Amino acid sequence: MPDNAANTPGEVLALIRDGRARTRSELSRLTGMSRSTITQRIDALLAGNFLYEAGEAPSSGGRPPQTLAFNSDAGVVLVADLDVTHSRFAVADLSGRLLAESAGELDIAEGPERVMGWVLDRFSELLEEVGRQDADVRGIGVGLPGPVEYSAGRAVSPPIMPGWDGVAVPSLLRPTFDVPVLVDNDVNIMALGEYWTRWRDRIDHMLFVKVGTGIGSGIVANGDIYRGQHGAAGDMGHVQVPTATEVVCRCGNRGCLEAIAGGGALAERLRGLGETVVDGRDVAKSALAGDTRAIRMIRSAGRQIGEVLAGVVNLLNPGAIILGGDVALAANELVAGVREVVYERSTVLATHDLTVECSELGDRAGVVGAAVMIIESILLPSAVDAAIRGDAAG
Amino acid sequence: MPDNAANTPGEVLALIRDGRARTRSELSRLTGMSRSTITQRIDALLAGNFLYEAGEAPSSGGRPPQTLAFNSDAGVVLVADLDVTHSRFAVADLSGRLLAESAGELDIAEGPERVMGWVLDRFSELLEEVGRQDADVRGIGVGLPGPVEYSAGRAVSPPIMPGWDGVAVPSLLRPTFDVPVLVDNDVNIMALGEYWTRWRDRIDHMLFVKVGTGIGSGIVANGDIYRGQHGAAGDMGHVQVPTATEVVCRCGNRGCLEAIAGGGALAERLRGLGETVVDGRDVAKSALAGDTRAIRMIRSAGRQIGEVLAGVVNLLNPGAIILGGDVALAANELVAGVREVVYERSTVLATHDLTVECSELGDRAGVVGAAVMIIESILLPSAVDAAIRGDAAG
Repeated sequence: MPDNAANTPGEVLALIRDGRARTRSELSRLTGMSRSTITQRIDALLAGNFLYEAGEAPSSGGRPPQTLAFNSDAGVVLVADLDVTHSRFAVADLSGRLLAESAGELDIAEGPERVMGWVLDRFSELLEEVGRQDADVRGIGVGLPGPVEYSAGRAVSPPIMPGWDGVAVPSLLRPTFDVPVLVDNDVNIMALGEYWTRWRDRIDHMLFVKVGTGIGSGIVANGDIYRGQHGAAGDMGHVQVPTATEVVCRCGNRGCLEAIAGGGALAERLRGLGETVVDGRDVAKSALAGDTRAIRMIRSAGRQIGEVLAGVVNLLNPGAIILGGDVALAANELVAGVREVVYERSTVLATHDLTVECSELGDRAGVVGAAVMIIESILLPSAVDAAIRGDAAG
Repeated sequence: MPDNAANTPGEVLALIRDGRARTRSELSRLTGMSRSTITQRIDALLAGNFLYEAGEAPSSGGRPPQTLAFNSDAGVVLVADLDVTHSRFAVADLSGRLLAESAGELDIAEGPERVMGWVLDRFSELLEEVGRQDADVRGIGVGLPGPVEYSAGRAVSPPIMPGWDGVAVPSLLRPTFDVPVLVDNDVNIMALGEYWTRWRDRIDHMLFVKVGTGIGSGIVANGDIYRGQHGAAGDMGHVQVPTATEVVCRCGNRGCLEAIAGGGALAERLRGLGETVVDGRDVAKSALAGDTRAIRMIRSAGRQIGEVLAGVVNLLNPGAIILGGDVALAANELVAGVREVVYERSTVLATHDLTVECSELGDRAGVVGAAVMIIESILLPSAVDAAIRGDAAG
């Protein structure tokens, strides 16, 4: 029996989306299913609008075969990447291509009802911009700046989101859009965006580190986000830095990475030197503009983050570490500092082909990842099969 | 369609092994397959000796149904947990129950041919002890005290195993036993043993920390061993301890956990105080015998290990941390030290129902885990299906 068991329409669709099969005969060869079974599955997928006939493939003699293609225009997904004050939004087709994007400012502390109402307004604007209706929406993906119980889409004890503790975000969106809604931590969706865009074909394990006001990480393990027992995995901000144990963090402990190398700490230190900067983004911009104090400061932050990452590299042996967030705008300085310590300090085996780079998606990593998260969920073979059974019954 | 798709004999066997189904009607209800298909699958499994008819279940009216049970006596697996000098061996039935065990001393530096020849002799003794033949052996599981490229069963740059670099262990066993051979790092198999024996029903993520001469960890993520991009994951011995940056490690770096809190370091320090101890096991025995200096030393090592684990807990949010290895013989002292720091230092969310305990399997964790590793591999649905197709063809 061939390796690629594909008994259901959803499994057949997965082979076509992956590019492993484009015609009925390729599917038959790949799955070992009979031509008549393949035809049944394809017909169901065509009827359900998941596939379309994309024209004839070159013939190898005889009648040229019809190629099949995934119908990425069959619907859209809506995504929101919410940060403490600054948020980004997008509407994407089912291939994950962003059709329109927007950004806006609202304090997350305004509370869940207010914020999600505002999010729904942004979604309406985006749909209008691309000429789509509410009925075209197949799913919604949301990132929040705090811990999330992924299975329920619920914020859990978020330190910087007063009023959100225990709130299930899907329940605030479903009255408007009766579609699947997935919610995750903002760093996790950024990690997913980077991984799917650039790394998925090459490595199975990746670490994304967001250096913003705080410092957090998203762990990709075996190709998927690793969340831990209570969805709290990825915290790096409160790990102790070996060489800076004297600094007191807002959490009460000493030497926390965030209190030393986070964007907030850097901005505060630069203000102490008389410069007018508000946050890590300003510090990074100063560095990019050639401010030597900001440059030295970010390089040093990179080394301190590297001290913590050196241990993480030994522990997780990732194929790549990708740095993102506001401070990573000063990419060269930050990466240089991190590399300096990680390559010196981690084991040879764990670093021998480790890549350390800054994000290429930048501010867009979150919306790209949120789209991947919801699309991969609604196109899971089991979800596709359920949709097709629903169609047939309805 | 019911959730439990089970189209092949191997998938049906998995449902019976898990205890989710015991009779043909339960299987039919669970899978949605027709009675005639179920009968075909069961017949194949009975013919392949994977199942047996285990007698009648209580009837709910009408003819009482025959129950089906996994035939764990259909073969045995052989396992070896090799350490630097001291190794353990076992023969297990296909449920993972150890039928006989042995232990022996041989320096791993004698090299792969010599050591694996010796291992084969131990395997022969065990088979004879339980009255089984070479032909009954279905698979072999081996743990090595160093990094392993799991897919090839190959030792990779093992620091304490001269002559083993690049050696594929299966090739040394296959001339004698033409069966599947899986090889992993010794800490990974210990982690697997602990996880399957006590934790699998309760949590998905666990960290096993071996405190022997060195310090290493085995990471269970989503119920499976996490190995990282090059099989190097789990190293903790060369992570820097925040509060002890002055100590120089044999690796050349400063402040490595192993150089401070490993069994070798503890024994050396106790020898410096005039006590006659050789290794971490002796230090633990002294502590158990009431030696207050050894007790204080292990407690302090626990705190230093805790400093590193505090960061690991934030990063991975495991459901449990299990401590094993020689130093963990002094369980109370070691656990107390680790808990003291982890519960104070890690985030509230990551610790709110975190368990920190010592191993209950102790020295046997490795052989138990090696048995789990090879059994779960040879009983994967795809492997069972392949075996049945082979039977039918032969």
